[in-house]
Amino acid sequence: MNLQKALRWRYATKAMNGETVPSEKLQKILDAIRFAPTSAGLQPFVVFVITDPKLKEKIRPIANNQQQIVQSSHLLVFAPWSIYTTERITETIDLNNAIRQLTESQTANLRERLLKIFRELSPEEHFYQAAKQTAIAMGFGLLAAAIEGVDASPMEGFDSEKLDELLELRKLNLMSSTLVALGYRNADEDWLVNMKKVRRSESAIFIHI
Amino acid sequence: MNLQKALRWRYATKAMNGETVPSEKLQKILDAIRFAPTSAGLQPFVVFVITDPKLKEKIRPIANNQQQIVQSSHLLVFAPWSIYTTERITETIDLNNAIRQLTESQTANLRERLLKIFRELSPEEHFYQAAKQTAIAMGFGLLAAAIEGVDASPMEGFDSEKLDELLELRKLNLMSSTLVALGYRNADEDWLVNMKKVRRSESAIFIHI
Repeated sequence: MNLQKALRWRYATKAMNGETVPSEKLQKILDAIRFAPTSAGLQPFVVFVITDPKLKEKIRPIANNQQQIVQSSHLLVFAPWSIYTTERITETIDLNNAIRQLTESQTANLRERLLKIFRELSPEEHFYQAAKQTAIAMGFGLLAAAIEGVDASPMEGFDSEKLDELLELRKLNLMSSTLVALGYRNADEDWLVNMKKVRRSESAIFIHI
Repeated sequence: MNLQKALRWRYATKAMNGETVPSEKLQKILDAIRFAPTSAGLQPFVVFVITDPKLKEKIRPIANNQQQIVQSSHLLVFAPWSIYTTERITETIDLNNAIRQLTESQTANLRERLLKIFRELSPEEHFYQAAKQTAIAMGFGLLAAAIEGVDASPMEGFDSEKLDELLELRKLNLMSSTLVALGYRNADEDWLVNMKKVRRSESAIFIHI
């Protein structure tokens, strides 16, 4: 689907029909998430890709009982880093050096600069910074889904503490930020599908100077 | 450009050639930003679209002197709301009601629920929540730019207080979060253009359950 059509076709799907997203399309969506840019290339998140129906059933009551969670083909849980540890930063720099054939000394300054930035931030700021980067990647994933004709329902209204407990995220130094149900709309059962899209006007959002 | 090619073609362009992005392409990029989903549809941000060369020159030293700022065709400044005020929330609900032909009483609960959520958050949490939504929209804009064959350079490394002062953002209850230079790469001058793209492996990012 072309970009302009995809932007107008997509909506936060409230009812899905249980059909499976083919692996080729899922791959393109995950690719978009993985290739999204993040600050300093740190990609500070993990994404859980959940197909297990029992696990979806357990997540549903944690997320206001939203039906698209169990009606989805794949439920994505975006889990930003709760902390930018020295290990994580070093690992990313090491990966960078390996792929680009750089020596440790060529990226030592970058590494020190990043470590210094995060040493000076509070725990809350670590998570918020990671959650912001994760949101860029989620944006890539949502737009890719629409282009591939796959419906998506992003959800922030859930009990993240309970979800973190269920998925044992805290011991991985992760915290959940957003859910995205992927699947196909059940138009007959979805109150939102025929509602007009609401967006502020261009002049309310863009200021040209 | 198709999605998969666009994901691999784009990179955080470090040198641009000064060519102008045609208005038709710019429009598609701004459209993607405006149509991006945000929590409760609040679209809590303004985007400054800067073409004035003198203003770009003033911004450059605030942003580590990065040359793509003045070499860009359009410089976008993403400015999330620093606070979700009652007026802003009410305005969004009113717009929703007008477009969807709903009465005030039909959305009174939604309005109260949103007001309650934000009353309970700290000023920092207001801004972080808005910045996260803004990042989704920026993600849409960056991917749209790549699909349209327009280069983009997202930048977080700048002095946001100074930029807020220059653009007089604080009195609008806005704070700058990210810059995006739009334009065309100057491959001969760009150290990054021929570097291999660095991304963590699929198994490091995705956990299938």
